[in-house]
Amino acid sequence: MTSPRQLHLNAFLFGAGHHQAAWRHPDSPLEQLGDIAHWERLARTAERGLFDAVFFADGHSAGDVGDGPRWFLEPLTALSAIARATERIGLVSTVSATFWTPFHAARLLASLDHISRGRAGWNVVTSMFDAEARNHGLPGIPPHAERYARAAEFIDVAHRLWDSWSDDALVGDRHGLHADPEQVTRIDHAGEHFRVDGPLTVPRPPQGRPVLFQAGASGPGRDLAARHAEAVYAVAYDLESALAYRTDLLRRVAAAGRDPEGVAVMPGLVAYVGSTEAEARAKQAEVDALLPEEQSLAQLSAFVQQDCSGWELDAPVPELPPLERFTGPQGRYATILRIVAVERPTVRQLLGRLAAGGGHCTVVGTPEAVADRMELWFRSGAADGFNLMPPRLPESLDDFVDHVVPVLQSRGLFRTRYTASTLRGHLGLPRPGSGRPPGPVRPVRTARSPA
Amino acid sequence: MTSPRQLHLNAFLFGAGHHQAAWRHPDSPLEQLGDIAHWERLARTAERGLFDAVFFADGHSAGDVGDGPRWFLEPLTALSAIARATERIGLVSTVSATFWTPFHAARLLASLDHISRGRAGWNVVTSMFDAEARNHGLPGIPPHAERYARAAEFIDVAHRLWDSWSDDALVGDRHGLHADPEQVTRIDHAGEHFRVDGPLTVPRPPQGRPVLFQAGASGPGRDLAARHAEAVYAVAYDLESALAYRTDLLRRVAAAGRDPEGVAVMPGLVAYVGSTEAEARAKQAEVDALLPEEQSLAQLSAFVQQDCSGWELDAPVPELPPLERFTGPQGRYATILRIVAVERPTVRQLLGRLAAGGGHCTVVGTPEAVADRMELWFRSGAADGFNLMPPRLPESLDDFVDHVVPVLQSRGLFRTRYTASTLRGHLGLPRPGSGRPPGPVRPVRTARSPA
Repeated sequence: MTSPRQLHLNAFLFGAGHHQAAWRHPDSPLEQLGDIAHWERLARTAERGLFDAVFFADGHSAGDVGDGPRWFLEPLTALSAIARATERIGLVSTVSATFWTPFHAARLLASLDHISRGRAGWNVVTSMFDAEARNHGLPGIPPHAERYARAAEFIDVAHRLWDSWSDDALVGDRHGLHADPEQVTRIDHAGEHFRVDGPLTVPRPPQGRPVLFQAGASGPGRDLAARHAEAVYAVAYDLESALAYRTDLLRRVAAAGRDPEGVAVMPGLVAYVGSTEAEARAKQAEVDALLPEEQSLAQLSAFVQQDCSGWELDAPVPELPPLERFTGPQGRYATILRIVAVERPTVRQLLGRLAAGGGHCTVVGTPEAVADRMELWFRSGAADGFNLMPPRLPESLDDFVDHVVPVLQSRGLFRTRYTASTLRGHLGLPRPGSGRPPGPVRPVRTARSPA
Repeated sequence: MTSPRQLHLNAFLFGAGHHQAAWRHPDSPLEQLGDIAHWERLARTAERGLFDAVFFADGHSAGDVGDGPRWFLEPLTALSAIARATERIGLVSTVSATFWTPFHAARLLASLDHISRGRAGWNVVTSMFDAEARNHGLPGIPPHAERYARAAEFIDVAHRLWDSWSDDALVGDRHGLHADPEQVTRIDHAGEHFRVDGPLTVPRPPQGRPVLFQAGASGPGRDLAARHAEAVYAVAYDLESALAYRTDLLRRVAAAGRDPEGVAVMPGLVAYVGSTEAEARAKQAEVDALLPEEQSLAQLSAFVQQDCSGWELDAPVPELPPLERFTGPQGRYATILRIVAVERPTVRQLLGRLAAGGGHCTVVGTPEAVADRMELWFRSGAADGFNLMPPRLPESLDDFVDHVVPVLQSRGLFRTRYTASTLRGHLGLPRPGSGRPPGPVRPVRTARSPA
């Protein structure tokens, strides 16, 4: 008898929470964002909730620093510390294939996998801002196609570096060899973007390879995910779009010759949880009310390309032109049209929704209502799990762990204890084999340097 | 009344110890080298001994993996974990200016400084092996002068990135600004090797800037140290060379317009400690005996450029040609000549000395004898402290902490408790000011990206 399929859950930890105004709340952890103990506490909360992993985004430019906290600790170093404050939960770091190089990235991720005893994950991104590129010597962000081509080669090199030490390479014979040179092989990669001889300096990671996450939205992004990703962070506003996304992605996975069972699709989920719906709505309204009105309306004006400064905050959103008549960036505008059509929000409510993962699945309600939505998406084939985006930290994460997780568990939808000790294990992913690269073995022989 | 000057001590943790055969010892921690708990234990031992810092080397090629452990965990990730297992001791990571880029390096070091609450140090190196360069897309290691020019610019960029957030930048006004954009400034660096706009994504580190270590041996290396280093890891075989080195270095520091008091010169120190000299010698002989004879003699043949395979291991070293008649690499050969002249070793003893930091100050004896040597160097102006290189881990570190430290303390040469909580504090170094760069302020204003 095989165990029934269950949800996978990541806790996406970001700033003071995913709501742009979360940091303005009197109880926000604003003074603790550089304190690793704060992040350890959040990770332990997620571990108490038996989450598969904590998930860290990353960026390479400071952005508008007045407007709220964004980046602080670098995620690979932070997760190395968090690894020692937790025991089972996975640790997913975003690492940009555009700004890192594969030897560095593979090395730090392998090290994190050893430090955490097999709990490392890599969310590969290609980054998007000129300001980030200009911190790394580039005149601007490279074109989309170039970034994705580089990322594909980057992933290939990283995989080969992790495979450059076989599982049995460490012999540990005190009277003979420390490692078997025939099981530690060069990769001799010479591609369009990278030249890397290998092998890695780090013996094979406990998971073989850290788990590869990706958030493929565009066509090339989905194809990259289809070829390589083991879990996908998706953006889906409603069941229909989530189902369409997952169906398309798994079709591409199959077309790439991989088993669709080996890829967990995890849409973002913004949840405001209360013991009643009214209490949940009050929590949402409380943080929405912290948004600076003038600034939010100015941002909205840019999104809808008309002057919103005179809009009445507590009146319904005025009628907007249809998407086909809109000449600005489509994605965000489409989200706004959908929110307006489905939720009929006031202007203030729209600003709040946009300020907290507007394009993502958002649920405001009781634990049962949140679980209902998750169950519906899960049973409909729209999601294998969710990347929880708590609007306010730590409160929204506490609420979810304390109240939603027990409901999911009572429905048999979520684990009641960890049955594995690695992130691969939590996700039900196979461990890649010892990965001796095909072709003749090229043992490493170089002169030993002085210590 | 100012407190008397005292020694500074780093624990240089490397593999199974600095003796090449340490891993072959039955008690070696060979199976634990990928286990972060092992390194945490060593760091806690050094902290129990009130050391200023633990010191990690780094390299970017696997080397001859059969011949012993060399690299395993990457140091910045390892030290981020170790930061949470310790409270006071400094955490010095080697980071290569040849293979890293300044934005990545400054970011991870700043993050480590936050995670450790002000205990990060950066040992800047320029690396030296073609095999390392070929893991980073280079055809071979760049010429010495080019590496040093790059390193100088690299340090400058890192400093400016750490200074890009002033100490008072984080306003944390929940009703106003998170950070003051006028105190978070671009650096707009455009140099020969790097273009970096800045600011950093990480607010100013607790120490202002992590402490800069360097190991300048060559002329350009000493000049780089003189301009930038706050502590120097030196190689000195005897008092005379240590004194000459420190005198020359501090002269260069003064010539660079800096205060020589602000630079701690810390030669490497290899110590075998026993309750009697005989016991210490037995410890040395025990690990020397683990060297594979044939392989060691082959290595020696390369060093002295003659066939040593027939040399009698327990006989005195045969006479060697003087340095001026030697046509191979000079440094190592000079060390061999000095060891032979001063210590009159057997061939086996010479192999052992070369296998454990041969060019470094080596003491084999009682705790008092080790302390005597350290005190002599310290009082003679040859050293401000030492970078302890334990030949066998954990034993040699335990011996030093348990037996030598108390002797140093009883002589007033070493602290009896930590009086500071940062690495700068331990080293008596000033904290760099808030470092607002000169010239007009260029506040950062970029569009906020979606979360």
